[in-house]
Amino acid sequence: MGESKNYAIHNGELLPEHKAVIPISDKAYFFDFAVYSSLKVIKGKVFFPEYHIERLFDSAKQIELKHTFKKNEVVQWINKLAEKNKIKDSLLRMLLIGDPSYGNEANLYIFPVTGVTYYPQKFYSKGIKAITYKGERRFPTAKTVDLLLGFLALREAKMNNAFEALLVDSRGRVREGTRSNIFAVKGNTVITPAKSFVVEGITRKFILKVLEGNKDFEVKEEDIYLSKIKEYDEIFISSTLMNAMPVRQINDYKIESEFPKTKKILKLFKDYYRKNVLE
Amino acid sequence: MGESKNYAIHNGELLPEHKAVIPISDKAYFFDFAVYSSLKVIKGKVFFPEYHIERLFDSAKQIELKHTFKKNEVVQWINKLAEKNKIKDSLLRMLLIGDPSYGNEANLYIFPVTGVTYYPQKFYSKGIKAITYKGERRFPTAKTVDLLLGFLALREAKMNNAFEALLVDSRGRVREGTRSNIFAVKGNTVITPAKSFVVEGITRKFILKVLEGNKDFEVKEEDIYLSKIKEYDEIFISSTLMNAMPVRQINDYKIESEFPKTKKILKLFKDYYRKNVLE
Repeated sequence: MGESKNYAIHNGELLPEHKAVIPISDKAYFFDFAVYSSLKVIKGKVFFPEYHIERLFDSAKQIELKHTFKKNEVVQWINKLAEKNKIKDSLLRMLLIGDPSYGNEANLYIFPVTGVTYYPQKFYSKGIKAITYKGERRFPTAKTVDLLLGFLALREAKMNNAFEALLVDSRGRVREGTRSNIFAVKGNTVITPAKSFVVEGITRKFILKVLEGNKDFEVKEEDIYLSKIKEYDEIFISSTLMNAMPVRQINDYKIESEFPKTKKILKLFKDYYRKNVLE
Repeated sequence: MGESKNYAIHNGELLPEHKAVIPISDKAYFFDFAVYSSLKVIKGKVFFPEYHIERLFDSAKQIELKHTFKKNEVVQWINKLAEKNKIKDSLLRMLLIGDPSYGNEANLYIFPVTGVTYYPQKFYSKGIKAITYKGERRFPTAKTVDLLLGFLALREAKMNNAFEALLVDSRGRVREGTRSNIFAVKGNTVITPAKSFVVEGITRKFILKVLEGNKDFEVKEEDIYLSKIKEYDEIFISSTLMNAMPVRQINDYKIESEFPKTKKILKLFKDYYRKNVLE
């Protein structure tokens, strides 16, 4: 009767999505003692679930959030959910909420997230606009849910008709987007901040893997200073949903490019996942 | 059947506490686009509800969280809830969750929080132990729910058999506790960080009000540097639940005092609220 026919998973148990709720008085979630990851499902295939689970568990470990979930069982739960929801193209979120008493009575929810799974083609052909926003996350290498900074940064971006906000730290370094990693291209060199400073995006990880196996590119993990942004030929951002997406404008600075390198990298990445995920 | 007989309020509607839930997929709460305040109820009397609501609305304004709730109606809801729950001594939390689409479709929940409402008498006679923890909140003057810093700091405190963690900013200033304001006493001068740096605790506000009307004390709003902590005669912390509570130890430093000033301030504050709230 108007209720979603989708399902969610709570600690391995399938339940109707509308029953996947948290008590308003839940203290762990209130205090942001939780970590998450978002997975893409295309044509019923889940993209890199093992890596998402490993990263989820790594984020949990960084804030000493204890739990007893095992990678293999969580992979099964994700696949069960994708099948039960007859999910073709969608996004699933895993949310691991800790035990407020510091024990290992954590709760793991997996559920579909509303929104697009594909961005318009012109975002890839023409590039997107980004703004910059001052701030850095407290636990830069963990996907914790203290997300207010990113929320406000992205709101600011949307108010300015931009697609993404790039977070700039106190030293003037562009660390990452609110939901993406950043890359800069100069000649054949692809530069991205070291993984000790950012969340290691699954897409970032595989883009680097693909590039390292390609003789046309050289990869460098180093800082990207906002003050030096004009020295680069191309800038692009990556995420599970974006893949590799060119940036045509940062604040008032317009990047005059057809983004040939970004487009080539996007193709290499897509070739890789077509072969390794979809086939 | 084992379910709580307590009630909660959602946008003015009374509902059984176990039905006060949030969908796991709620985006505003997930992204910490929410503010809160916690109120004390003693012998059925709610402490300073108007001030808590004003502060809640002020916190919302700071992060541009729009809503249409009015102070008067929220006071009525709080009183209705206190009456319906036959609450004698307890804590109520208000949680105002924003509209993820940046409109004014916010949700206001009011619900009882489990835990103590009184601390042991010896905390007041002997003082409590605190640790220090590096970090400052992103929106220091707002009670936003991006609370992971405070949660981890307090966990660290408890692991060290301490009662509170004092947050020290990048310049070495003790700003506040995870759930308290801090005061230092030297002679007859009571020092506390300016309200532009901290959440303006309701108890802090009334302690200052009481002291400003008392000829035995002088009040100064200024920074408290951790490096100078030994220069003070007494340190105390304040909150809705603590009132004014002496600190006997910070990390390894022991404050040798019987806390005569803190005890006097506690008495002045209690006299004030007995007269203004309980009578």
